[in-house]
Amino acid sequence: MKILNDTVTKIDKINFLLAADTQRRLNNLTKPQGSLGRLEELAKQVVEITRAKNPPVANKVVFVMAGDHGVTDEGVSAFPKEVTPQMVYNFLRGGAGINVLARHVGARVVVADLGVAVDLQAHPELVVRKVNYGTKNMAKGPAMTRQEAVKSIENGIEIFEVEYKKGIHLAATGEMGIGNTTPASAIVSVITGRTAAEVTGKGTGIDDAAWQKKVDVIKKAIDVNKPDPMDGIDVLAKVGGYEIGGLTGVILAAASHRVPVVVDGFISSSAALLACIIEPDVKDYLIASHSSVEKGHKIVWDHLGLKPILDLNLRLGEGTGAALAMGIVEAGVKILTEMSTFENAGVSERT
Amino acid sequence: MKILNDTVTKIDKINFLLAADTQRRLNNLTKPQGSLGRLEELAKQVVEITRAKNPPVANKVVFVMAGDHGVTDEGVSAFPKEVTPQMVYNFLRGGAGINVLARHVGARVVVADLGVAVDLQAHPELVVRKVNYGTKNMAKGPAMTRQEAVKSIENGIEIFEVEYKKGIHLAATGEMGIGNTTPASAIVSVITGRTAAEVTGKGTGIDDAAWQKKVDVIKKAIDVNKPDPMDGIDVLAKVGGYEIGGLTGVILAAASHRVPVVVDGFISSSAALLACIIEPDVKDYLIASHSSVEKGHKIVWDHLGLKPILDLNLRLGEGTGAALAMGIVEAGVKILTEMSTFENAGVSERT
Repeated sequence: MKILNDTVTKIDKINFLLAADTQRRLNNLTKPQGSLGRLEELAKQVVEITRAKNPPVANKVVFVMAGDHGVTDEGVSAFPKEVTPQMVYNFLRGGAGINVLARHVGARVVVADLGVAVDLQAHPELVVRKVNYGTKNMAKGPAMTRQEAVKSIENGIEIFEVEYKKGIHLAATGEMGIGNTTPASAIVSVITGRTAAEVTGKGTGIDDAAWQKKVDVIKKAIDVNKPDPMDGIDVLAKVGGYEIGGLTGVILAAASHRVPVVVDGFISSSAALLACIIEPDVKDYLIASHSSVEKGHKIVWDHLGLKPILDLNLRLGEGTGAALAMGIVEAGVKILTEMSTFENAGVSERT
Repeated sequence: MKILNDTVTKIDKINFLLAADTQRRLNNLTKPQGSLGRLEELAKQVVEITRAKNPPVANKVVFVMAGDHGVTDEGVSAFPKEVTPQMVYNFLRGGAGINVLARHVGARVVVADLGVAVDLQAHPELVVRKVNYGTKNMAKGPAMTRQEAVKSIENGIEIFEVEYKKGIHLAATGEMGIGNTTPASAIVSVITGRTAAEVTGKGTGIDDAAWQKKVDVIKKAIDVNKPDPMDGIDVLAKVGGYEIGGLTGVILAAASHRVPVVVDGFISSSAALLACIIEPDVKDYLIASHSSVEKGHKIVWDHLGLKPILDLNLRLGEGTGAALAMGIVEAGVKILTEMSTFENAGVSERT
């Protein structure tokens, strides 16, 4: 618990006072005032978070965390459980969606095993911080112990710290775990107070009957475990997952170092909710990457008061939407740091 | 007229038959089917346009065309007319918004003078294809002659042809011309049949009184000139602009070479409308980059049946939204060409 407490203690409020000066600088650039809309807002947010006048954005890292879920015993996913390790190998070989999109935006990918159900083959780029071999079936009792929940968050923090030493200007979250829309839906239902049916989507692609079953499993998991919505660690332990806890740790650690975090899809957003319950000041360090097809995603963004950057009908996870959004955030910062002013360019201002 | 006719003759329908095979290939990639939403649609469209199984996308070009507008005599813009040449110099020095965003996505910028009101200083990267020194005041008569309208389109075609020889996989439109939201609104009103008030926004930033005046000027220009909505050249001549004609030419030339065109903001979209009136098959070569604050923009996309990729509250023009969208289109194509298949990656498919 010490690592988690120390990290949370280091999290400050972002510096809202820097917005006005940054907007003044944006207004001096050769364009009508405010005409770059969201790009300008993103530049301001990054300044407020980093406290840097001209924040660097070159070092971008997507943290992709993997874990398995005992609740797959209930038949909640369209894909078999062995896909989790198979996809981890795919990440390590560079052939998955997140690899393609991270290369496209110039981000590196950190792949970590927080709780895959099998031992993975060693690989120089695989970070092994396994808390356990998959969670237990949350429909029958807690997914993990409270100690394991803390451990998964602290493992995430430590994974971030290692990468932070190599340099990170912008972090993004990503995940892989067959069945993990189910714990994510449970977390979102508990924290936002919305019903399981309201927050539950069709994951990787299930039919109506399977969806109803998934909703029933989520309801049951909440009824059986009674997670305390004011206690993020309790929610994580009872209806969460190891990779979700790992991402919660990444988000907390990033905020403690004043690094903006681009949050990916629905599962990542459930980790963001947990981080905000643990430390509400984290919210302003978050950038909502995109609006997923998964219907609970919008509920999370609304709950946190965040407006997603992209709306491309994505529902893959892995950090794919976050990687694309990182490219847009970087563009916004470059507008602030690379454009000419009216004065330097000898351009007349409006009459 | 020969250059224009020859170009239009070369424009084929895109090959819709390639969509099914491409979707099959996308479905074999290591992700749930359809889970990359819009990225998959973009990849399919680029295959249909280029007829290439694995279309290259590295060579990206933003065509930024400049022109002046006699209608600024009516006081329709918040910025003085000298900003047009000043911004052209800014483009050539690399300090404008489009330069920053084109560098960000790895696109080159071609800057062309189609009708700036003054002679510009020579610059090795400035393409001078001036049709005339600014248009005439369209509130009092035609903006240009029919011959000039054809010339502006043909100049755009020739500018594209020069760049095409250097290699273009993806083209984007951009423009600069103080006052040019006024002709763009007039073009959109004439072609879509919507009223001037419905399609007219606040350009670079004018107040309500100035907006009403702008609407009145547009109405008057349409009343005085009576452009024929079925004749794109007539519309361009009577209520258009030289840079708008140039972009119409770029779009037609790109389609004739099976190069996808990412269309930028409101003014660019008015050029796209003209190109589609001249040759309706052009429509399928177009990719709508973003949804601008300028309210007529949505009307154009709806009229053409195009769905914009981004919604970032942009209203700068220059090709800025198109440059960002090019990055997303490129990402979509890379998904198709760089991701592993289930078979290659040894990943199990859904049960």
